[in-house]
Amino acid sequence: MYDFVYCAPTKVVFGKNSEGRLGELLKQYGATKALIHYGGGSALKGELLTRVRWSLEEAGVAAVELGGVKPNPRLSLVEEGVALCKAEGVDFIVAVGGGSVIDSAKAIGMALKIDGQPWDIYSGKVKPVATVPVGVILTLAASGSEMSNSSVITNDRIQVKKGCTAEISRPVFAIMNPVLTFSVPPYPTACGCADIAMHTMERYLTGGETMKVTDAIGEDIVRTVVACSKRLLKNPEDYEARANVMWAGSLSHNGLTGCGGDGGDWATHTLGHELSALYDVAHGAALTALWGAWARYVCKDALGRFYSFAIQAMGVRPSGTREEIAMKGIEATEEWFRSIGLPTSIGELGITLDDAQLREMARRCAENCGGVKGSCMRLKERDMYEIYKAAL
Amino acid sequence: MYDFVYCAPTKVVFGKNSEGRLGELLKQYGATKALIHYGGGSALKGELLTRVRWSLEEAGVAAVELGGVKPNPRLSLVEEGVALCKAEGVDFIVAVGGGSVIDSAKAIGMALKIDGQPWDIYSGKVKPVATVPVGVILTLAASGSEMSNSSVITNDRIQVKKGCTAEISRPVFAIMNPVLTFSVPPYPTACGCADIAMHTMERYLTGGETMKVTDAIGEDIVRTVVACSKRLLKNPEDYEARANVMWAGSLSHNGLTGCGGDGGDWATHTLGHELSALYDVAHGAALTALWGAWARYVCKDALGRFYSFAIQAMGVRPSGTREEIAMKGIEATEEWFRSIGLPTSIGELGITLDDAQLREMARRCAENCGGVKGSCMRLKERDMYEIYKAAL
Repeated sequence: MYDFVYCAPTKVVFGKNSEGRLGELLKQYGATKALIHYGGGSALKGELLTRVRWSLEEAGVAAVELGGVKPNPRLSLVEEGVALCKAEGVDFIVAVGGGSVIDSAKAIGMALKIDGQPWDIYSGKVKPVATVPVGVILTLAASGSEMSNSSVITNDRIQVKKGCTAEISRPVFAIMNPVLTFSVPPYPTACGCADIAMHTMERYLTGGETMKVTDAIGEDIVRTVVACSKRLLKNPEDYEARANVMWAGSLSHNGLTGCGGDGGDWATHTLGHELSALYDVAHGAALTALWGAWARYVCKDALGRFYSFAIQAMGVRPSGTREEIAMKGIEATEEWFRSIGLPTSIGELGITLDDAQLREMARRCAENCGGVKGSCMRLKERDMYEIYKAAL
Repeated sequence: MYDFVYCAPTKVVFGKNSEGRLGELLKQYGATKALIHYGGGSALKGELLTRVRWSLEEAGVAAVELGGVKPNPRLSLVEEGVALCKAEGVDFIVAVGGGSVIDSAKAIGMALKIDGQPWDIYSGKVKPVATVPVGVILTLAASGSEMSNSSVITNDRIQVKKGCTAEISRPVFAIMNPVLTFSVPPYPTACGCADIAMHTMERYLTGGETMKVTDAIGEDIVRTVVACSKRLLKNPEDYEARANVMWAGSLSHNGLTGCGGDGGDWATHTLGHELSALYDVAHGAALTALWGAWARYVCKDALGRFYSFAIQAMGVRPSGTREEIAMKGIEATEEWFRSIGLPTSIGELGITLDDAQLREMARRCAENCGGVKGSCMRLKERDMYEIYKAAL
């Protein structure tokens, strides 16, 4: 195991009707004027936005609003948000939505505190050291952004998707009411479950050392999410399943599943971001479309990890060689993806790519990650191309 | 499952030589004059205190010192600490030690911010709302106090041990170097492991609802601690085992293992505190001496929980009736206690009690917890007496 620093200070307020505590929380954090930031779908259902407005009014916190966040959140809307917050003197941002809305809110919050443009943060030109505080009302269990230190923004002028990791970007509070996710349709529910499992798998399936208790927690999270994702296909209003997936989503990406590890592999995320940025694919589906090809490409270099993942997380019976068991684990994972309606190839996303397009995607991927990515195997552009090709 | 609030903001700096970062952390938190608070044993070994002093000096943070904290930390020393901090203008407390030192530091920190005496906090007369910040260098894996919101102080004038739960009392940082625990002898190591497992068991073995992913994490923690405690008997310098126990200790008591639960049972802790206060028994040993008697007394009322604990945490084979499996789980737990040299009865602590003493202990226990305690079963004074008697 390696040394680590762990700090996940986000206050989680979890349960039925917990969004009713928004005003009280805003007062605790000293907000006087808030930006209510949201997308277009979930936040508007069940009159959630109306209740949010009412809660702020009751708490005496003024508000301005900015909706329209789309999946793979756009830089242009972040810039609009920054301008709005500056003009209105906003001192708190409430993100009502899933990962895209939260990431957009994080970008706005940090950009308000730098001397420069929002993209400077994501291009690496400026290191953010402060933020206007962000609070979350979560309506989609997936990204884990509600407790995480990271955010991803797509520059819609140049079609480049880039992430930023900064401790100061962790939301100060996250209101999580599983009932708010009842209305999420099967496909985005499944994408969310895959994303959650992947956040643990990226940290678990690595070439480096790990820590026993962290491994066990990671295995739990994957097992829980696999089981609950299947329950949710049958009954989208299964409160226990929604709640477990929601909490697993936060735990999977707040740092806990990486304690003692080497920081994780993250090649699948890197490969997936490129696919999402170029072809506007849902994040979770981009991951499952590529994961199997990645796993087969690298598993011989991290056999012990794929072996224990197969047995402990995917429930593969420990008979056969280590290679066979590791491979069965990969197959079981893909079988799970398919069982909840997710693609296991680029073709299943409805995308047909020729060789030139694959090479261009690999080139961009390598360029955007600085030439090399991964822990199981250090992937270069050539490897990325091979994985994309194997995933066709 | 129940609604919950989870917030564990303590920054954990984990690994070899992590104590070298003390000065840097103190500067981050704006300390100008620190109280270095410690006990008598571990903090002095390996010249740790010398390194602490040097780290502060290098960081330009002035320091005063107060040692002499004993197990079951005393109110009189807390009062001395408060007077010293007031006289010296201390604005940060560094606890170098285990749970007793941390709890004593928490008490001093909170008492400095109230209008009243330190015992007012523990007697429930004054609710603490602020604290002088506390940072920790952990030298004993046991109490979980390094990330927890609770502390326990013994009023050595009236021999009453009382706890305080307050979110503001969570340390701002915890430096955890497993190497610092290499020198902890077998018996306190074992007591610590028992205490860690008990913090999860108190939350897991309850009469209320629970949450799937939380249950799984609790089972992991117990399994990890059981396995590592045995490794440490053979090799006290097994870094991986020390590290896993240390991190499990924090996770077991920072709130994570209670998410979605009913708050836990805590009767064993309550019964144990009375035994410790009256007969100065090590906390972990008091818990193991009483646990089996408690478990047999209440298990029929929370059979499902004892059943899953037996199988998932203690590795009991699932053959037989639910009652038989639950009982095998209790026996396996006691066997683990014995295997690491811990008592499973009051007699094994070298204490002989007559009936009047038992009745008096039960009376005090009931009085100090407000008459009734427990979730598996709501224990009254009569039940407490029966459990103490069964534990003789």
